[in-house]
Order: sequence, then structure tokens, then C-alpha cells
Amino acid sequence: MPGNAVILLSGGLDSATTLALAAEQGFACYALTVRYGQRHAVELQAAERVAAALGVRRHEIVDLDLRAFGGSALTAEIDVPKDRTVAAMTEEIPVTYVPARNTIFLALALAWAETLPAYDLFVGVNAVDYSGYPDCRPAFIEAFGHLANVATKAGIEDGRFRIHAPLIDLSKTEIIREGLRLGVDYGLTHSCYDPDPSGRPCERCDSCHIRAEAFAALGTVDPARV
Amino acid sequence: MPGNAVILLSGGLDSATTLALAAEQGFACYALTVRYGQRHAVELQAAERVAAALGVRRHEIVDLDLRAFGGSALTAEIDVPKDRTVAAMTEEIPVTYVPARNTIFLALALAWAETLPAYDLFVGVNAVDYSGYPDCRPAFIEAFGHLANVATKAGIEDGRFRIHAPLIDLSKTEIIREGLRLGVDYGLTHSCYDPDPSGRPCERCDSCHIRAEAFAALGTVDPARV
Repeated sequence: MPGNAVILLSGGLDSATTLALAAEQGFACYALTVRYGQRHAVELQAAERVAAALGVRRHEIVDLDLRAFGGSALTAEIDVPKDRTVAAMTEEIPVTYVPARNTIFLALALAWAETLPAYDLFVGVNAVDYSGYPDCRPAFIEAFGHLANVATKAGIEDGRFRIHAPLIDLSKTEIIREGLRLGVDYGLTHSCYDPDPSGRPCERCDSCHIRAEAFAALGTVDPARV
Repeated sequence: MPGNAVILLSGGLDSATTLALAAEQGFACYALTVRYGQRHAVELQAAERVAAALGVRRHEIVDLDLRAFGGSALTAEIDVPKDRTVAAMTEEIPVTYVPARNTIFLALALAWAETLPAYDLFVGVNAVDYSGYPDCRPAFIEAFGHLANVATKAGIEDGRFRIHAPLIDLSKTEIIREGLRLGVDYGLTHSCYDPDPSGRPCERCDSCHIRAEAFAALGTVDPARV
């Protein structure tokens, strides 16, 4: 019988779908969002909307300013690439990669999980449309699962942590199809890396292009774009 | 030839010694300290003194409030145990254990290392006097090293991360002996989990007892206690 789960929730399409999948499996869901100095901070409001709509037990927004380290287009003064082909997006690890971000986020989820307690951690990474981020691959999820069970009191004494990455083998269209089946309102989500000050998506970054193409492939209107 | 290294620096005795060892090996040292809501926040000032005395290239203090998660005597309203025997200290994982703390701290060090770049991370954990913390054991260090090299762009593309835990097999007396050989001024460091508002050590928590016993065993006066 499922117990508590901690779900990393960014406010984007993938993490909203992941949360819906965890809820469908019967987990009591605790959503964790990180305000890390991302230029698309508007996604934090999306995370709040999604958490409320999907009825989480609790939603924590943790402050951790990664701008001190720099090194990414999402947190530093590096331009977000625009209007790239899918081939160009996947050719190399893009500048929107945030160093060790998913390692940090899963470490925070693990800390919260240990105190709740929860032994199930959900993260919405996917290896198909992942644009080459190293911390979105199955090898990363497996390595973190091993670490979680040697790093913690709960891992050693009380049980086994499981890291769930239910989207890892899905394409963006498959993810949206899953979410629509579960009733996810994608109008609440935000995907753009470089929104204007009012929060409007740029429609030109990798994330916007991937999202638009997936909705087009499904023959469905993106409710966040109407 | 050693390059850059990121050293986790708490302001305590162990991390000061670790920093001195990294410097002795010729690394250009970048010290990372986390303000995580610890009740002994006075250690942050100790970290600044130690970083300055040992001549680091840069010292970053990152804010990350772990009090939201609770679960530890160091961050929540749980009493710090006092006047315990060494047997009692090591019998079980104590309430001063902070859930997933070293996982989070190493993840932050990894993020910074990737942007510098630095491929050597130093952490002052030790498995002998570690009071039963799961994230101070060799199995943890090994698991994190594996994770670092699958989780990051730099791990995959550019080289190999190495996690150094040079104190892991040393007792507290051996650590202090190493530090004295290297000229570490332990008068700059802070170890107490539960200092009074002026920063004065309680002399009764596990950390104070372990420190006092180690200096006594060496027949040396603790310069922080004169």
C-alpha cells in the first residue's frame, strides 16, 4: 500500500504529469519546489497552481540561490538559445543545463522524505526529450537511488528509498497524453526558459519549441497558449 | 599537478584540518559553507576566520534553510543530548544527525566544482568519531563519487570527479595531530552543537566532549578554550 511520496515540482509540464501519476498510484503527495534564482521564476507560481489543483498534502518552496555558482543560461548572464532545430538541441549538452541541479534537488527531496517519513521520491526527468542533460538519464536515477540508501538513517534502518522517474522513457507527446488521461490541466503549467517580465512564454527557446511540437503532434490545443 | 578543489568548510575542527590538507597537496582551494539554519550559526564566523587564515581563493556561504524539513536537534526544537558517554554516543544514530545533510552539501560542492571547474571535492567526514552518522562512512563517499560522474556534464565529458575524505579513518586525536603539524590554528574553529547566545561552547554536547577528550589525550591545551 503506497504511503507518502515527495515529488519534485517545477511548475512545468513534466513535473505536473509526474505528480498526477504519483497521486493516481495512491501516494500521499508532498510537493517540493526550489526557488534557485531561475530566470523563469514565473514557474514557481505555476507550481503553486498545480500543487493546489492536484491536492497535495503539503507544498514546500525552498530557497537556494544557485546564481552564486553561475555556469548556466538559466541562472547566469548567458543567453538562452532560440529557434534551434531538434537536431541542434540534442547534439550537445546545452547552456541551459544547470550544474548538478537534479542532484541538489533530489538531495533536498531526500532530506524532506527522511523526516516525513517517505520512501518514494518522484522526479519528472525524461531521457528522450531531455536535450542532453546528464542528470536526466537512467544511470543518474540508479546512482541516486543507491546513494539515498547508504546516505541516510532511514535508508539504513527503516527501509528502502525508491526513486521514481515515470517519464524517463516517454516522449513529450506520450507525457502529455498520459497527463490528459489523468485530467492534468496544462493551462496551469509553465515551460518557457526565457519568459517576458509578465510571464509570457518566448515561443522560441528549446522548451517552448518542444512543447509546441508535442501539442501539435497530438492535434490538441495547448491550454496555456490560448 | 593539482588544480582547483572545492572544500566543504563548516568552521569546525575537522573541516579546517581538511582544508589545510588540501592546501598542503597544492590544490587551489575554494571553500564552501552552508548557512542551513543550524542552531550553532556561530560556526559560520569560524568558517570565515579559517578560510581567511588558510588563504583560500574564494569562500562562498550559501543560504539553504533546512528548518522547513525539521527532523534534527541541530535545526529543530529537539534538545541536543548532553553529558553522554562515548558508548552512548555511538550506540545509535543521534538526534543531531541532519537528514541527508552531507548529500546536500556535496551536491552543492559538485555544482560549484562543475562551473569553476574543479574535479576534486574535499569533505571532512570521519568514520571513527562520527557518532554513527550514515553520511560519514566510506560507502557514502564512494556512492557520491559514482553519482558525481554520471550526474554532471563535467563528469561525462571532461574528466573524473574525485571525492576526498582524508580524515575518514582518523580518530579525533589523529586529526588534531595532523592539523597541528600543518599549523592549523584551532583557536579559530568552533565545534559545539549548542553554544550560548554569545557563542561560548556548552562543554556538554557530544561534539564538545569528543573535542575536549582529544586535546586531553594529546596533552595539549585547546586554544579555543583558553
